[in-house]
Amino acid sequence: MDFIKHYVALIQSEIHQLDLPDTPETLYEPQRYILRSKAKRVRPVLTLIAAGMCGKPIEKSLPAAIAVELVHNFSLIHDDIMDQAESRRGNQTVHIKWDASTAILSGDGMLIQALLQLHKLAPEIDHKKINHVFLEGINRVCEGQALDMEFEDRLDVNTEEYLNMISGKTAALIAVSMEMGGICANADSYKIDTLREIGYSLGIAFQIQDDILDVTADPEKFGKRKGGDIYEGKKTYLMLQALELSNKVEKKWLSKCLQNKPIQKTDVKKIIDLYDKYGIPAKAESIMNGYYEKAEKALHTFEDSEYKGDLSKLINYLRNREF
Amino acid sequence: MDFIKHYVALIQSEIHQLDLPDTPETLYEPQRYILRSKAKRVRPVLTLIAAGMCGKPIEKSLPAAIAVELVHNFSLIHDDIMDQAESRRGNQTVHIKWDASTAILSGDGMLIQALLQLHKLAPEIDHKKINHVFLEGINRVCEGQALDMEFEDRLDVNTEEYLNMISGKTAALIAVSMEMGGICANADSYKIDTLREIGYSLGIAFQIQDDILDVTADPEKFGKRKGGDIYEGKKTYLMLQALELSNKVEKKWLSKCLQNKPIQKTDVKKIIDLYDKYGIPAKAESIMNGYYEKAEKALHTFEDSEYKGDLSKLINYLRNREF
Repeated sequence: MDFIKHYVALIQSEIHQLDLPDTPETLYEPQRYILRSKAKRVRPVLTLIAAGMCGKPIEKSLPAAIAVELVHNFSLIHDDIMDQAESRRGNQTVHIKWDASTAILSGDGMLIQALLQLHKLAPEIDHKKINHVFLEGINRVCEGQALDMEFEDRLDVNTEEYLNMISGKTAALIAVSMEMGGICANADSYKIDTLREIGYSLGIAFQIQDDILDVTADPEKFGKRKGGDIYEGKKTYLMLQALELSNKVEKKWLSKCLQNKPIQKTDVKKIIDLYDKYGIPAKAESIMNGYYEKAEKALHTFEDSEYKGDLSKLINYLRNREF
Repeated sequence: MDFIKHYVALIQSEIHQLDLPDTPETLYEPQRYILRSKAKRVRPVLTLIAAGMCGKPIEKSLPAAIAVELVHNFSLIHDDIMDQAESRRGNQTVHIKWDASTAILSGDGMLIQALLQLHKLAPEIDHKKINHVFLEGINRVCEGQALDMEFEDRLDVNTEEYLNMISGKTAALIAVSMEMGGICANADSYKIDTLREIGYSLGIAFQIQDDILDVTADPEKFGKRKGGDIYEGKKTYLMLQALELSNKVEKKWLSKCLQNKPIQKTDVKKIIDLYDKYGIPAKAESIMNGYYEKAEKALHTFEDSEYKGDLSKLINYLRNREF
């Protein structure tokens, strides 16, 4: 992703300069730790690009970009406790390296730091508006995470509910990343709405793609074992389609599998076969492509610029990713 | 506390009208649950009184008052997980009634709801300023909680460090409660600073008093067993004084007790005797009184009013509480 290198460099330099105090160590060191880990910084890049697309110097939106990245990392720290995840980006998760209490508290602190970033924005930027958009977005992320946890114990989740869940859990923060870029550029409300919509489309496409890659990607490149979501019995787009499209006998068996997590290796293979029998990965891919295309089309709202070109390249890059 | 009844009624009515969505249930029901539990609402009352003392209708500050109460409850939900507390205000704690994941997430959501409250303030109130003061205050609370956890494994905590810890953990939110009332009333910066200082003094006095009541209060009235903090080996003001004032042999024994938590009943009794030997409860009471007096004296900054009278009564009530 050479074409976003200079955006990432700007973000890395800003993160490097974050003036987190030295003490209390158990509050700030976990925050520094997760920010040091290798990350793609896609969300803050989208903020910068959105500001650029609205004709303002991208540097104006840097505090908002950092705010988004901090919220993303806050949610990773807390989600990793809930998911009992032991590693993240090749490092131990915060609650493993320290403990759950330290992870809860440093996550809380990081959320506050994120909101404090918005106070670094230039005075001509509407602080009240951007703060409100940000808070509503973070609340949508919390709602998405809650729905995801509720789905774990349910077998009757439908596709609409799934889309609503990922709109919160994955897409809301991406939407907010773009919307905040537009607000930093004092763009008109039509452009701001369009940026948010592009973000939602990208986020939903990205999540469905993740669900597909779980069964189609080269596990070496993807960094997760093949069918990892199936082992965990996750209600992915593919799993919900399988529950919807399979015949009575298959559905009964699949439901039984989902009630006895983790799912056994032989059953995981059978479930992948079931996906193929009903052409589910291809169907999911077509849905995913619809969202990527929606995002791409919405770019017409904006005048041509290097930023618009970069976003188009980024959409293309994400769409064709194999891991 | 009859003289604060009408403030509490106003706050209860506002909390009752909070428009939290019905779903996702696991995000919002724990928030409703903790807000339904019996609580004194001291912090939001202080916000209303502070606004009144600065000559504005107290209703103007209601959203800020509610914001403070929501943050207080957010911190209770998360602290109870960290402290593994099983009950709170006579009810099961959120992480016991549901589970730790639900408690982490609903706490996060409640923090966001608190910040969203500030968007309900009238447009003439400086949103950016009040948001900043609030965030810095919440961050101080996080710092205090981190220090408190760090103190658990240390034997060399001094009184200055202890005061810094409770300034964050207990006093910062009380200080912010009062400061925000002043900001809602568009008070001048001298008055706002004074309100914050009163809040800090009250908060510190309140916490030292809690430490004292742990060994002096009637356990029936206090609702906690006598010496509860000692059983847990907490670094209270009294314990730190005991470590500082006791002779070599006593100090060695006390340190050994603190390294083998929970402390045994016979040792708890001996520690209370040690406190008495060095006149520690009386000494702590004198420090506490100093802070209450500092708060009382600062009231001179404000013109006489029913609100100032109510705050004076409240300070007096707190100072003389026996549980």
